[in-house]
Amino acid sequence: MFPKVHAGMEMAMERNGYCTKTMGNWEKHIPIFAQKMKTYPGLLWKKMWKVGHDDPRRVIHAFKVGLSLTLVSLLYLMEPLFKGIGQGAIWAVMTVVLVLEFTAGATLYKGLNRGFGTLLAGSLAFIFEYIATESGRVFRAVFIGAAVFLVGSAATYLRFFPYIKKNYDYGVVIFLLTFNLITVSSYRVDDVPKIAHDRFFTIAIGCGVCLLMSLLIFPNWSGEELHNSTVLKLEGLAKSIEACVTEYFVATDIKDTENQCSEDPIYEGYEGVLDSKSKDEALALYASWEPRHSRCHLFPWQRYVKLGGVLRHFGYTVVALHGCLRTEIPTPQSARTLFKDPCNRLAGEISKVLMELANSIRNHRHCSPEILSDHLHEALQDLNTAIKSQPRLVLGSNKNQATNMLALAAAQASQKHEKAPGVSLSSVKTDSSALMEWKSRRASDSKEAERKVLRPQLSKIAITSLEFSEALPFAAFASLLVEMVAKLDNVIEEVEGLGRAACYKEY
Amino acid sequence: MFPKVHAGMEMAMERNGYCTKTMGNWEKHIPIFAQKMKTYPGLLWKKMWKVGHDDPRRVIHAFKVGLSLTLVSLLYLMEPLFKGIGQGAIWAVMTVVLVLEFTAGATLYKGLNRGFGTLLAGSLAFIFEYIATESGRVFRAVFIGAAVFLVGSAATYLRFFPYIKKNYDYGVVIFLLTFNLITVSSYRVDDVPKIAHDRFFTIAIGCGVCLLMSLLIFPNWSGEELHNSTVLKLEGLAKSIEACVTEYFVATDIKDTENQCSEDPIYEGYEGVLDSKSKDEALALYASWEPRHSRCHLFPWQRYVKLGGVLRHFGYTVVALHGCLRTEIPTPQSARTLFKDPCNRLAGEISKVLMELANSIRNHRHCSPEILSDHLHEALQDLNTAIKSQPRLVLGSNKNQATNMLALAAAQASQKHEKAPGVSLSSVKTDSSALMEWKSRRASDSKEAERKVLRPQLSKIAITSLEFSEALPFAAFASLLVEMVAKLDNVIEEVEGLGRAACYKEY
Repeated sequence: MFPKVHAGMEMAMERNGYCTKTMGNWEKHIPIFAQKMKTYPGLLWKKMWKVGHDDPRRVIHAFKVGLSLTLVSLLYLMEPLFKGIGQGAIWAVMTVVLVLEFTAGATLYKGLNRGFGTLLAGSLAFIFEYIATESGRVFRAVFIGAAVFLVGSAATYLRFFPYIKKNYDYGVVIFLLTFNLITVSSYRVDDVPKIAHDRFFTIAIGCGVCLLMSLLIFPNWSGEELHNSTVLKLEGLAKSIEACVTEYFVATDIKDTENQCSEDPIYEGYEGVLDSKSKDEALALYASWEPRHSRCHLFPWQRYVKLGGVLRHFGYTVVALHGCLRTEIPTPQSARTLFKDPCNRLAGEISKVLMELANSIRNHRHCSPEILSDHLHEALQDLNTAIKSQPRLVLGSNKNQATNMLALAAAQASQKHEKAPGVSLSSVKTDSSALMEWKSRRASDSKEAERKVLRPQLSKIAITSLEFSEALPFAAFASLLVEMVAKLDNVIEEVEGLGRAACYKEY
Repeated sequence: MFPKVHAGMEMAMERNGYCTKTMGNWEKHIPIFAQKMKTYPGLLWKKMWKVGHDDPRRVIHAFKVGLSLTLVSLLYLMEPLFKGIGQGAIWAVMTVVLVLEFTAGATLYKGLNRGFGTLLAGSLAFIFEYIATESGRVFRAVFIGAAVFLVGSAATYLRFFPYIKKNYDYGVVIFLLTFNLITVSSYRVDDVPKIAHDRFFTIAIGCGVCLLMSLLIFPNWSGEELHNSTVLKLEGLAKSIEACVTEYFVATDIKDTENQCSEDPIYEGYEGVLDSKSKDEALALYASWEPRHSRCHLFPWQRYVKLGGVLRHFGYTVVALHGCLRTEIPTPQSARTLFKDPCNRLAGEISKVLMELANSIRNHRHCSPEILSDHLHEALQDLNTAIKSQPRLVLGSNKNQATNMLALAAAQASQKHEKAPGVSLSSVKTDSSALMEWKSRRASDSKEAERKVLRPQLSKIAITSLEFSEALPFAAFASLLVEMVAKLDNVIEEVEGLGRAACYKEY
């Protein structure tokens, strides 16, 4: 196990900002370590505070678990209760530990799966017991062994079915557990039905306490969380798009901030959307076990999952748009500035639509259909007009005119396919100057691993020396904005579908 | 619970292709239902076969579980073994059900977490027992109740810490479970240390059987699965990019296949990359518990997770590229065809690099650094040359020349900022004809929900009536290809980093 322990340590150390690469100078590390040890209690306290501060429901949940455990312990500790229930009271404690979860839906899912699993296993075990009861001791042992093998294999195989895995995995595990416990112990214990009855009774008490705690005392609903997270996702995307377009037309030294990825407001906006699949599905599963508290008889939690999928695909476009900010070959700032207003307006309209959708979901009402599309249409027309009315600027600023693809196209169109000699000259110049820069950089960085430096630099040269590529990024940026409008339709349609399925109020 | 049952049924029915919207005509449904019931056993058998056929290790795992359960049952069923171990043998059965998982890493994670959790809980319970043992009966009950409450709350709160949640969640649950069982039952049972000892012994036997089964008999390694899934992801991306570019220059009627999303080879290629986060993290966690079987002392599973993140971001660009195929405003086919070769070549080079990276990971060796970049560079230059040498085609085919943004730019450059009157005319024409089309379509579809039809159509008009947008998609397509080269650098760097950390062979 030593390698493991070391690996675990390394991971923990990397997490704390240690660098394990310079293992040689331990002397330096010891005072740092001592310093860390001094500040550790403070850090721990801060972390503990943060976990509770981020979501106070966690503190409440921790107290709920403590209280539930104390309650079921009373079954065992108090004389009159213990007399009624007996030794099996300990199963109630076990049930509470395993069933009581953060949200009501998860508790119901686990509790009901546990209940049904136990009931089914008990019935099956009783049938097997009935078959084996008349036979001799040795045959009975063989029979029990064979039953354990077959049921164990079958139940495990069943867990690989996607539908079972998704909805009833916990139930199958509990079924297998209970079946084995009852069947195996029936070999030496005569009073199996009584044991099974007692156990089921105490498990029911345990489940009852859990349900009471999770449904009635400060309940956390999975459905509500799914609902709120969907609203937050829409708002996050809206903020991302606006911030993205604003930054595209403002920032000049974006390159330096490459490593701030995690603190970037744009990234924060769409971060929650991208990897939401498993979380959404779990919440929808738990929510589907929760009692309904809306006008709708069948609340369409799967529609939320589907909307999540559509939003994820919308999010990929936002990522691509964000990629335009971090491209190696930025469009000249002077050219960008002149499309600032129409692009900003289109982005503003898109995020307004997303915000309106978020609000409609938040307030459980349909969104107003006409307003959305008219403004979007106008904003698209604006961008169109802006590009039409500023052809010189699409052709690049004065400085870059010769090396710009669009300028080249224009020049060649007017010169009837005669090649402009200036173009290839400047192209060569860019090429060789970039190569020079790379060579000088390479000389200064020669201490670093050569392979690592070599390739990235090479392909950066490949990109920056291409003239046509200077014109492309803005086209890509505009195209992605237009593409976003097309994808927005899918989002609107899905939200509308959700609204209809969930019986939202009329606008 | 009725709403829930109904909802579950509905979900199951939707899954089977039923439509629950037409609830009125049950008469029609009954023969269909009877028909379904007849074919159901066949379907079930097919499904069962498929689950095993997709991954035969599942069948083996099912038999392994059955065999392990039978083995530990023998502790209880065979007279000499039972005499040695006693009633506690049932805990070994329980342990096997709860600990034996599909991969060796997951079993080790659960087994060791269970072991340490039980040990820690036993020690703590023993200390509490020692404190409470001298006091009176009532004080002892209160003391136990308070201990259960405090430890229960603290352990539950601890589970909200991201680091604990990620690495030791199961251990904390087992700790809480065992602590409560021992502490509570110590109130009425005198021989707690003996019980704890027996239980720990049988749990150790159960864990031993699990480890034997998962490590020695047809083991499935999480690390291997993570490794293979990374290789498959790289290959999938490579295939996606090639298929994407091929389809861009071939297909004409892509619109009709909008709903085939799930059977699309392009989608299949990058599908596995996009939602891989939680799976990767789980596999890396389990793999970190597995014994090393490489030359590396500390095998860097976290690097695989990091590479997965980089691949995910690369994948978002592929999604955007795929979006270019499904755009509402395609570039004219004639214009596309002339950039076919350079684009195909660049895409081919990108996927060759990805394939080379996949192979280097598969064979645990470094990749050849020079070849990669030279060819990519050439392919980029090719695309550049192609666009430079075909300016007329960037300007649009003959038919579309007047409505093309680039043509407009060229025309305006040569006409020195005089507006071409043909442009705005054709713009109006496109606009009104699209509106006509929409109106006629609306009339025929009037039976459907009006809201649903209205908006998507409106914004489609908004897009198709814009002239500039015809030129944008190809620019976006080319820009995304170039962007991909930039992102490819990150992927190469990460694979190199992985290779260094995992002590890959030299090329």
